[in-house]
Amino acid sequence: MTAVIPEGVTVARDLVGPAIAAAVDRLTPEVRAVAAYHLGLADAEGRPTSPGGKALRPALALLSARATGAEPKRGVPAAVAVELVHNFSLLHDDIMDGDQERRHRPTAWKVYGIGPAILAGDALLMLAQDLLLEDSGPHGSWAARCVNAAVLRLIAGQGSDLAFEKRDDVTLSECMTMAGGKTAALMACACSVGAVYLGAPPALAMGLAAFGSHVGMAFQLTDDLLGIWGEPEVTGKPVRADLRARKKSLPVVAALTSGLGQGLELGKLLASPEPLTEDDLMHAARLVEEAGGKRWAEAEVDNQLAEAGRCLAETGVPDDVRAEFTAIAQFITTRQY
Amino acid sequence: MTAVIPEGVTVARDLVGPAIAAAVDRLTPEVRAVAAYHLGLADAEGRPTSPGGKALRPALALLSARATGAEPKRGVPAAVAVELVHNFSLLHDDIMDGDQERRHRPTAWKVYGIGPAILAGDALLMLAQDLLLEDSGPHGSWAARCVNAAVLRLIAGQGSDLAFEKRDDVTLSECMTMAGGKTAALMACACSVGAVYLGAPPALAMGLAAFGSHVGMAFQLTDDLLGIWGEPEVTGKPVRADLRARKKSLPVVAALTSGLGQGLELGKLLASPEPLTEDDLMHAARLVEEAGGKRWAEAEVDNQLAEAGRCLAETGVPDDVRAEFTAIAQFITTRQY
Repeated sequence: MTAVIPEGVTVARDLVGPAIAAAVDRLTPEVRAVAAYHLGLADAEGRPTSPGGKALRPALALLSARATGAEPKRGVPAAVAVELVHNFSLLHDDIMDGDQERRHRPTAWKVYGIGPAILAGDALLMLAQDLLLEDSGPHGSWAARCVNAAVLRLIAGQGSDLAFEKRDDVTLSECMTMAGGKTAALMACACSVGAVYLGAPPALAMGLAAFGSHVGMAFQLTDDLLGIWGEPEVTGKPVRADLRARKKSLPVVAALTSGLGQGLELGKLLASPEPLTEDDLMHAARLVEEAGGKRWAEAEVDNQLAEAGRCLAETGVPDDVRAEFTAIAQFITTRQY
Repeated sequence: MTAVIPEGVTVARDLVGPAIAAAVDRLTPEVRAVAAYHLGLADAEGRPTSPGGKALRPALALLSARATGAEPKRGVPAAVAVELVHNFSLLHDDIMDGDQERRHRPTAWKVYGIGPAILAGDALLMLAQDLLLEDSGPHGSWAARCVNAAVLRLIAGQGSDLAFEKRDDVTLSECMTMAGGKTAALMACACSVGAVYLGAPPALAMGLAAFGSHVGMAFQLTDDLLGIWGEPEVTGKPVRADLRARKKSLPVVAALTSGLGQGLELGKLLASPEPLTEDDLMHAARLVEEAGGKRWAEAEVDNQLAEAGRCLAETGVPDDVRAEFTAIAQFITTRQY
């Protein structure tokens, strides 16, 4: 399957990009420099660059605005807010996870230090809130609460993720809940916040959120599959990166909790205090597959996408909006391996 | 001058304490543990403890609710929000500043790690927003924006503070602006958010904010004076702690930029790569004093308090509310040395 960036994503980047730059311009110079670097608006010397992010979440937010029958541009504040919140979480997560690279550049905390990166994340979160509340009507306030709820679930998910690193008895159900917080909550918000912001009826907003939640789960499962079997050229990460980091990703936990011998062997391998060799990593990937972790995750992607489609159909959004939502869902769950 | 805790502070603790505990209870276990520890609601093993914080900002927020003629308890969500935001900033600042102790206990990041402490801060910030927006009327939304604006100024102030550490040409005016962000903005918010939350006329809200801003500046100046000349029993910090940390506090910058010989000597001493001995620290304190840094800061405390009093009088709040505001302002600017 080849992945072609859906048109809506390109349109969203053109509509939302300038608004994101304008929001960041409100910050004071020290904080702005870090935020602009992280967002790809500037390099580490402060020279302007063209942003590289995929604008997936803004595209979904604009579609959710269109779902109410409105012009996409009326959803721009909501789309900007979601993208800022997404980047708040990336800034903070990179520190927590000790990640050194993002989008082929050193992470913000590596360039500017932990303190300035924490602050820049805090600032993006507050800007997001403020953009939604500037429209002082009740809808802006509802949209802000929708974002708040997503951020609180995101925090809960990241909190579980950090706690899981120290545990060796994580169940698949706990892992799904964690992914629901870390990934699906913000995706659900992205797919509905534009509609909420424009005063959509609750049934529409909730249907879109349910669609987004399932798409988010499918996206996380895909990401986890690519973290083991993805080609470095596609993922931008070293091959088998998640196994190397001994990450308790969904296919891994499915294998570990399969009750099969290969699952037990995998558990021992990942728990060994020795550094893992390339041979170990290839063996680990094979064990995940033999214990059924890969097959389960691939089937679960399909289940989640089917559920997403069902939820979307029930909302009764116009066909063109539905087609674009579906195209983005397909795009972000494409596996190349 | 002896410092007696004003009655309003004790009353605020009783009214607001349970609401803070209830807000924290909304968090998932991993994140809740860190937040509860930081707030003094639990020890590092999760056993309940009685919180030790001074509840100054909640007391000011409840007074600002009373300034509108309302029962103090109607201001509780606003008071809780301000206290949560204050603690969000403490959690993150302790990481950025590398502080190991707070309120005579190890800081949250020392106990739980940087990641969980970042997350707990993020969570308190979101809880604060959500509490204000739960009242879905326009006032809650205005109060949330009032908090947002304070947080963005707080971030700007902390950003400058981090940047100042790497500079040796910081002006007194830059330093005052920084303190305006780091301390005065949230104090201004505390003194007005209860009124905003209850729909006070803008003139009253703005007058209270101006009062709070001046009190905040006076508070920061006092804190800086105590950071050099305060008794350890009073400050809970080692004597001359700010000089030891070579902090560019307001009296220090006033001395450095005095144009006097003692200011130049102080600059050389603080810039020396050698560790500072106790004799060096005593000498540095003397140089700050001889270069006029202490005298200036003490006079500026008085100026700011006088301005605060003028702003408060102009609001025309009832006499009892005015007296309590004034008592808290006096209390937090008392110098014992």
